[in-house]
Amino acid sequence: MGKTAPNILFIMYDQLRFDYLSCAGHKTLETPNFDRVAARGVRFDRAYCQSPVCGSSRMSTYTGRYVSSHGAAYNNFPLKVGEITMGDHLRKAGMDCWLIGKTHMKADSEGMARLGLAPDSVIGARVGECGFDIWLRDDGLWAEGPKGFYDQRRSPYNAYLREKGYTDHNPWHDHANAGIDGDGDIASGFLMKHAGKPANIREGDSETPWLTDRAIDFMEAKRGRDPWCAHLSYIKPHWPYIVPAPYHDMYGIEDIQPVVRSDKERTDAHPVFDAYLHGKLSAAFSRNDVRDVVIPAYMGLIKQCDDHLGRILDYLDETGQAEKTVIVLTSDHGDYMGDHWMGEKDFFHDPSVRVPLIIADPRSEADATRGTVSSKLIEQIDLAATFVDMAGGKVADHILEGRSLVPLLRGEESEWRDFAISEYDYSTSPMADRLGLAPRDCRLFMVVTERWKLIHAEGGFSPMLFDLEVDPQEFTDLGTSADHAEIIAQMYDHLHHWAKRQSQRTTISDEEIRARRQGGPEQVGILMGYYGDEGLPEEFTAAYQGKATPVEEN
Amino acid sequence: MGKTAPNILFIMYDQLRFDYLSCAGHKTLETPNFDRVAARGVRFDRAYCQSPVCGSSRMSTYTGRYVSSHGAAYNNFPLKVGEITMGDHLRKAGMDCWLIGKTHMKADSEGMARLGLAPDSVIGARVGECGFDIWLRDDGLWAEGPKGFYDQRRSPYNAYLREKGYTDHNPWHDHANAGIDGDGDIASGFLMKHAGKPANIREGDSETPWLTDRAIDFMEAKRGRDPWCAHLSYIKPHWPYIVPAPYHDMYGIEDIQPVVRSDKERTDAHPVFDAYLHGKLSAAFSRNDVRDVVIPAYMGLIKQCDDHLGRILDYLDETGQAEKTVIVLTSDHGDYMGDHWMGEKDFFHDPSVRVPLIIADPRSEADATRGTVSSKLIEQIDLAATFVDMAGGKVADHILEGRSLVPLLRGEESEWRDFAISEYDYSTSPMADRLGLAPRDCRLFMVVTERWKLIHAEGGFSPMLFDLEVDPQEFTDLGTSADHAEIIAQMYDHLHHWAKRQSQRTTISDEEIRARRQGGPEQVGILMGYYGDEGLPEEFTAAYQGKATPVEEN
Repeated sequence: MGKTAPNILFIMYDQLRFDYLSCAGHKTLETPNFDRVAARGVRFDRAYCQSPVCGSSRMSTYTGRYVSSHGAAYNNFPLKVGEITMGDHLRKAGMDCWLIGKTHMKADSEGMARLGLAPDSVIGARVGECGFDIWLRDDGLWAEGPKGFYDQRRSPYNAYLREKGYTDHNPWHDHANAGIDGDGDIASGFLMKHAGKPANIREGDSETPWLTDRAIDFMEAKRGRDPWCAHLSYIKPHWPYIVPAPYHDMYGIEDIQPVVRSDKERTDAHPVFDAYLHGKLSAAFSRNDVRDVVIPAYMGLIKQCDDHLGRILDYLDETGQAEKTVIVLTSDHGDYMGDHWMGEKDFFHDPSVRVPLIIADPRSEADATRGTVSSKLIEQIDLAATFVDMAGGKVADHILEGRSLVPLLRGEESEWRDFAISEYDYSTSPMADRLGLAPRDCRLFMVVTERWKLIHAEGGFSPMLFDLEVDPQEFTDLGTSADHAEIIAQMYDHLHHWAKRQSQRTTISDEEIRARRQGGPEQVGILMGYYGDEGLPEEFTAAYQGKATPVEEN
Repeated sequence: MGKTAPNILFIMYDQLRFDYLSCAGHKTLETPNFDRVAARGVRFDRAYCQSPVCGSSRMSTYTGRYVSSHGAAYNNFPLKVGEITMGDHLRKAGMDCWLIGKTHMKADSEGMARLGLAPDSVIGARVGECGFDIWLRDDGLWAEGPKGFYDQRRSPYNAYLREKGYTDHNPWHDHANAGIDGDGDIASGFLMKHAGKPANIREGDSETPWLTDRAIDFMEAKRGRDPWCAHLSYIKPHWPYIVPAPYHDMYGIEDIQPVVRSDKERTDAHPVFDAYLHGKLSAAFSRNDVRDVVIPAYMGLIKQCDDHLGRILDYLDETGQAEKTVIVLTSDHGDYMGDHWMGEKDFFHDPSVRVPLIIADPRSEADATRGTVSSKLIEQIDLAATFVDMAGGKVADHILEGRSLVPLLRGEESEWRDFAISEYDYSTSPMADRLGLAPRDCRLFMVVTERWKLIHAEGGFSPMLFDLEVDPQEFTDLGTSADHAEIIAQMYDHLHHWAKRQSQRTTISDEEIRARRQGGPEQVGILMGYYGDEGLPEEFTAAYQGKATPVEEN
């Protein structure tokens, strides 16, 4: 199976907007290395994450299943034991699946204990690490507050920095994610006013180059041991928004693209969106002074990512591995950057829910599509099915809910999905309290078609609706427009068809079900609907024939 | 916790119709022992199974979750590893949970292997046995055909019979489920023409008394080791329809209740129902000669169940255990017995989908409801929540989808559900081939309210609709009635609300979610939306303060 399979270098950035790449149309940010991969492959221009927030988005990508199907609906909601991952599917197809970087995986330790899975066993470690074998796990969130560290693990990156001579308590924060202010004090990147300062670290020691080096180490170690799948998963350009020199001042206010927002978005806003508009992030990112300092830093972080992607591409080219290595570039979600009066992600406007997705398959079968752009509706869960397909495995479509993109990469026209889905659970957020909602009413669903985007909110609200053709900027919410009742009904039909999907029948394949239609029960003696033996093939009754022993004789 | 909890004797019959009990209105079948329990407790008159077929119904009852939630949608579809069972919940509440009899559980051996769970370990055995500790497992289906036995396990019942001197190859079939014909040959109970013959076995050796004895053994062994939950799970009155003397001729044609069927059901029948009407079971059970011989045998089997229930009640009374033992009587589904031109179960008319449910709680808190009938809409998944509640545990309502019936048993009025759901997967059936449907389109959903019952079929069909008030016999399908468009829309609203439920977020409770709303991220150093430190409590920044070490010095 795996013999002729390519390697898969599955690179994920964190919080990288779909349109902050020059190949995706950014006017002032040059990303020649992303563009280089796009020129070699297909850029999918309408790819959506399954949830616009790290944890749940990633759990979908790593299981190939919708958020409602795996249940890890928000950051640090554990992925329940028993869920089958990309790694499980790939190993079955004969390909190892390694992690280098971030997953945001929270292990279901209660479930593991219930099943007696030791976290330090091979199986337990994979279950606890979302199915990956760990080359390096580093989620890149070594924040610390009065209740201790956000991430309780040992920090490989902090260990590295200490080895390099950064002796502060938490060099991840104090150096990689902070500058120095005029008084010589730590200027935390968590305060956005510091975004324009250079991070107090040698560029080569910052997170992106560090992880890139680890990825090259990995590929060196694996030379001659093809094929492999490696998930190289960066924390950047995720906040804290601060970047080392020379990237800190590579962009200025003049490089910022026009903000996408309209006063009418705040008038009569949908109650859930309105709750977001009253939040702290909205207040901050609606300020031009915030955008003016943050966006150039964010662009610098992306530029740094691009430069180090170049190192990887060069390494693959120079070592002859490029021709047998599929490269996948994507992000777990976007970043509003003040568009729609919003900061971060967490809602369904394009800057948040659309993701960059570029796949370059070096094999000749994909020659027809090199350098093309596909506008098919892609869901990020398609990646798991794609990788299994590339590994030469059979896509277990009773488990994996996405579809292999291999036919699209080969330019083989085929019918494709009519709509894509994304979900969001804001039950732990301040918005939930503001709206006074019970946890399970704090759920949003997005349905997007070629032209329309509907956002459904549980809890008794009307929906939001955008006409992406007439209103690509998503300013005009048509969710209560009587003229659009029919469209809204159609969009709900999609949602409800999807909601009734069979997502949990994961232990038996469609193929096996069809096989069982062939008179299975009679073959094992279950005879139903027979009065006499008319119509009953003799072989079926053989086991039941013979002389009876009258009970008195027993 | 478990200290003052009662024992729970959870008795399930198999294929016992809700209305074949004298307390439920049967005119000719006296079931004084069922009635005795009903007089001590509450009879729920509108209880529904979650799927009208053994395996999926039971997996719902044993997990407390809908079929769509656990995924074991039909007989012998394995219950996926990781699903949490009644037994898991009860043990957490300090109560053991034992099995005596049938579960129809198919273990997810692939999933167990993936997680390294040895079937003979304590944990592996529980996972493989649907969370029960096994006093005795016997599914009562020791059928054998050209491809061997339906059930590959060792048969405890056959072992018992051999010990008792029944030496035939498969005494379960040749004696317990067969008579003798005029030539002295085995007259298999699988051929319904033999239903009137006495089974060729001493009554005391037949399945119902045998399992009753094992239950009494269990209760004897556990005396002084309260509390326990025991699932006493009979195969009867399930087919083969044949019963030993004296039950074989206790009822005659004159005792058969009028058949509930109408010619108009076969005119313009819904396509899926029509496929059933063209099946072998429909052909057989539409014949009066079949009903005339099968129904008296079925009544005899129930009468035998009632007599042996009497032995259990006597035992509990005589040993003083009655006052500390809750008794629960139910069935996994019903039996059409020719009503609606149907045999067996597998569809959603009342004879198939409604189940008997009687709960007698001896504790004084339940005095107010003794001998009453409740017409609340009950789903069988309510039992798991009920038992956890009785055991003194906290009902994990992020996992368990049913509701505790304890408040109803205590006569505490409370708001209750407006609709109940049942599901059916016919993907392995001949009907699937007849309709030419892909496996995942072969799914039916029933939504029932106080007055209406809607049946939705995937695959592009219109629904079926019955007005239970005007048409309690369910003869008139209003699924395409323009006059009922509004009702149909309301019923679909229920279905779709249910379909969007959060069924897989099982690793974090609503309580924990509410707790996380209280500024969790900031407490661990995640500061979002701050430009400067305005509004930021000082403690949050403490970890990020201090003199910076310029990078050159590192």
